[in-house]
Amino acid sequence: MEWILHNGEFIRENELNVSKEDRGYQFGDGIYEVIRVYQGNLFTAKEHIDRFYDSAEKIKIVIPYTKDVFHKMMYDLVEMNEIDNGQVYVQITRGEAMRQHHFPQVTSPVLVAYPKKVERPVEMMEAGVKAAFVEDVRWLRCDIKSLNLLGNVMAKQEAHEAGAYEAILHRGEVVTEGSSSNMYGIKNGVIYTHPATNLILNGITRRVILELCKEQGITVQETAFTKTEALEMDEIFMSSTTAEIMPIIQIDGQNIGEGVPGELTKKLQQAFEANLKLTVKS
Amino acid sequence: MEWILHNGEFIRENELNVSKEDRGYQFGDGIYEVIRVYQGNLFTAKEHIDRFYDSAEKIKIVIPYTKDVFHKMMYDLVEMNEIDNGQVYVQITRGEAMRQHHFPQVTSPVLVAYPKKVERPVEMMEAGVKAAFVEDVRWLRCDIKSLNLLGNVMAKQEAHEAGAYEAILHRGEVVTEGSSSNMYGIKNGVIYTHPATNLILNGITRRVILELCKEQGITVQETAFTKTEALEMDEIFMSSTTAEIMPIIQIDGQNIGEGVPGELTKKLQQAFEANLKLTVKS
Repeated sequence: MEWILHNGEFIRENELNVSKEDRGYQFGDGIYEVIRVYQGNLFTAKEHIDRFYDSAEKIKIVIPYTKDVFHKMMYDLVEMNEIDNGQVYVQITRGEAMRQHHFPQVTSPVLVAYPKKVERPVEMMEAGVKAAFVEDVRWLRCDIKSLNLLGNVMAKQEAHEAGAYEAILHRGEVVTEGSSSNMYGIKNGVIYTHPATNLILNGITRRVILELCKEQGITVQETAFTKTEALEMDEIFMSSTTAEIMPIIQIDGQNIGEGVPGELTKKLQQAFEANLKLTVKS
Repeated sequence: MEWILHNGEFIRENELNVSKEDRGYQFGDGIYEVIRVYQGNLFTAKEHIDRFYDSAEKIKIVIPYTKDVFHKMMYDLVEMNEIDNGQVYVQITRGEAMRQHHFPQVTSPVLVAYPKKVERPVEMMEAGVKAAFVEDVRWLRCDIKSLNLLGNVMAKQEAHEAGAYEAILHRGEVVTEGSSSNMYGIKNGVIYTHPATNLILNGITRRVILELCKEQGITVQETAFTKTEALEMDEIFMSSTTAEIMPIIQIDGQNIGEGVPGELTKKLQQAFEANLKLTVKS
């Protein structure tokens, strides 16, 4: 049985007891992160931990650990569970209190973290995936990685039922991001992606990609594009912690470019992989 | 120790174990209701139960009980806990499953319900309360009574910190509703309230009020009003299952009308109370 982390203590899964009045359960009043593990190493741990603390601050939850202690706990969780390739899921809620909307006067946040073994989606990254357009009806604070994910869930499900791997969300005509990923379009060698405003979550993989583009001399414009423009792109890809850089070869049954992963996307995948090898070794 | 209802069984509170992978805990993937209990009777139970099933259907959760069985369970819960005046909180989530955004292929919904003793906020209803304007940043499916309540929580907290009882939410200039209530403005004897679109939750108390107005020959226009118009209303009040009909006498420190509960609001309170007595007796 796996070890899970609960408020700074390592316990067995069957020892965990979430309260019915945990505000995470009644209000989605909390935030989370998913950190990728490659060969036993937490990838871009610092960036994920910084964002975890940022999200918490945005909804005024005070995390009762220093970032160093938090980092060490994540590391121990991976080691104790002997995770080679996988991920750590970690969430913190405002804590338990008698149900009322405003914050309780006294409560302690509840932190739960646990790992999972996952392999890289190598075949899909090579073949590319299909996507579907879904209207973006989420709230206006998508920059917070919160537990209020029903909009994302419903969009992903809609895409799933249409036989697609990911939903491409759009507010009116404007593409924002995926239901659990960031979106990119490539036209004439330039990469377009929605700017990191309140309408998207600024992915850690997104940040890695922007860095890689800088190193590779690839022009990126943080400018939103429309649904119509998306369909006319030479290439489309998405990025996330678990899907890495994933080519999108079709949207709503319509081919993007030649309907196969594009050259620039493949170049970026290679750069990402090379960077990964460097990071994991170091 | 109170009895709580868990998936059709009555258990003691310490016997309940919510899973860390309950989709309610990780995604807010569920819906809820709060039903008022007056003198041991569930008030407008049918309406709350209908809405509970409607909300579930909107997010494609199938409730595994007939409405009659569900009603009976709510009734038993009140009786077993000897609730005279209070409320029942009931929620259902999509169930437990390994975390992924789209719906799990196989899972059973998790239902949790429990009662609480509460008295009517008589003094506040007589004196009126203060409110504060807060920008409405919630998603575009506010018609679903879902567990994604972080927008409501943050708004209520902002109002609370400003010394106000409720947040008056507005999208741009347009007032939508309260953070956990519906909003009404009265001008020259006409009651204005936001129409029951996707931007508000159509409160059960709201529906009772619209019925009462019909009976009393009071004109209601389901038309939205702006922040500016709100401040120029003769009277403002809010409604909810627990706050009933609550006069708002100040917004952001500015008096509404004379800064005391208005005549039409008081008339409606009386009509509500008379209706309550009839209903509870029957």
